[in-house]
Amino acid sequence: MTAHVFDAALALNGAGETLTGHTHPAYANMVGPFGGMISAVLLNAVLQHPQRLGDPVSLTVHYAAPIADGGFGLVPRVMRTNRTTQHWLVELVQAGGVAAYATAVTATRRDTWSASDAVFPEVPPADRVAVAPPVPRAAWTASYEMRFIDGALTMEEGERADSLTRLWIRDQPPRPLDYASLSAICDAFFPRIFVRRPKWVPVGTVTLTTYFHADAAQLAAVGAAPVLGVARANRFEQGFFDQSAEIWSGDGKLLAASHQLVYFKE
Amino acid sequence: MTAHVFDAALALNGAGETLTGHTHPAYANMVGPFGGMISAVLLNAVLQHPQRLGDPVSLTVHYAAPIADGGFGLVPRVMRTNRTTQHWLVELVQAGGVAAYATAVTATRRDTWSASDAVFPEVPPADRVAVAPPVPRAAWTASYEMRFIDGALTMEEGERADSLTRLWIRDQPPRPLDYASLSAICDAFFPRIFVRRPKWVPVGTVTLTTYFHADAAQLAAVGAAPVLGVARANRFEQGFFDQSAEIWSGDGKLLAASHQLVYFKE
Repeated sequence: MTAHVFDAALALNGAGETLTGHTHPAYANMVGPFGGMISAVLLNAVLQHPQRLGDPVSLTVHYAAPIADGGFGLVPRVMRTNRTTQHWLVELVQAGGVAAYATAVTATRRDTWSASDAVFPEVPPADRVAVAPPVPRAAWTASYEMRFIDGALTMEEGERADSLTRLWIRDQPPRPLDYASLSAICDAFFPRIFVRRPKWVPVGTVTLTTYFHADAAQLAAVGAAPVLGVARANRFEQGFFDQSAEIWSGDGKLLAASHQLVYFKE
Repeated sequence: MTAHVFDAALALNGAGETLTGHTHPAYANMVGPFGGMISAVLLNAVLQHPQRLGDPVSLTVHYAAPIADGGFGLVPRVMRTNRTTQHWLVELVQAGGVAAYATAVTATRRDTWSASDAVFPEVPPADRVAVAPPVPRAAWTASYEMRFIDGALTMEEGERADSLTRLWIRDQPPRPLDYASLSAICDAFFPRIFVRRPKWVPVGTVTLTTYFHADAAQLAAVGAAPVLGVARANRFEQGFFDQSAEIWSGDGKLLAASHQLVYFKE
């Protein structure tokens, strides 16, 4: 049995503070690799670190420079270890420079009072929504099953009043959800500017932050079922826009909230 | 004429890669300094760096350990410089360990197509809303003028259905808005758990990310007028909750969107 393509792309060689990885053609984007896969790879350097304490609760990725297809190095560093939380920095090095880096917090979680301000939207179940075809210019989209309820990428229509997208999404082929794949799914929304204003322009995520609201057992309970993604922009201004997204389990639990800042060229 | 207390708290000694600062009693919190002031100090190490390119567009702060009242060191590092963007890491060192650190992106901005998904809420103007008294147990609140439209801290009431707060806020005494003070205001919302569930428990921001949507000229245009802050939580779960906030100018421009993850003890 061969490894799932996501796990093949995620694979790192080495241990501790000397890791190497390689981009994978199944997660290629228009230029360089899909940012969600880079996010997953950076997180994986923390996940497989021998000194890790607990599970991820936050992850911030900086896409500092274009990443070329090919190999890269990863340098994880424990910045601080407390009793129940741990703070991280991971650098992704390519051609002698820092091409991306991430900070993360891991923590031991325990049951507490729980509540939600965010409300699970009323949407049709995944099996009632058609699967969208992959986007040819973005190879990575073939590695996901996407069922758009609204806000699909339709570059034929006019400018919209908002950039809201809601879709059911999971790995293609299906794979049980974990922190690495969830972090990648948080970046699997098309750039909001293309939803709001259908015109191809150069874009690139500059930085991406994800907060994880589920422990490993809650993620495992989702299994390989589709999750609901909701994304919108706040503001497009002077070459940058921000996006806020939520990822929900099918039974209405908020698994992650994710935010990113994206560069765009007029 | 003496410096504004915010500028006194912000002041750093040294230049380039060897900076020192000091906590200020006007920005003391229940334990240690107000996190917004730490955010401003970390950003200031970037702002006054001789190699800085452009203005801040994003800032992520990790509150890695308790910060003691007293002196600290700051070590800024340029991670990558591109043509129009620059990526940063700043470490705050105290007692030989990393007590906090920040990543940031600065960029040269230029006028482009502009739009907003977020909608300026209908609220009464600042001069129609009463100024709230400072919170005695949090000294820093006396360094802000806060006018709550809703979601004030009223620990006498029962559990609420949401944690939404809207308030007009500015420095006290008034001070013209800039990136440092805006980054601090992004952390000036009381912990959402106290709004939703009025019960004192230990809390602490773990990580805070702010996206700046205004250039320096737009911030200068706000001057010392109050800005509108809007904050809500998404989910409280297993010892952590996240908060998303918006800061608006009085004339309805989104100046910043800010997100944070907060630890709480049941």
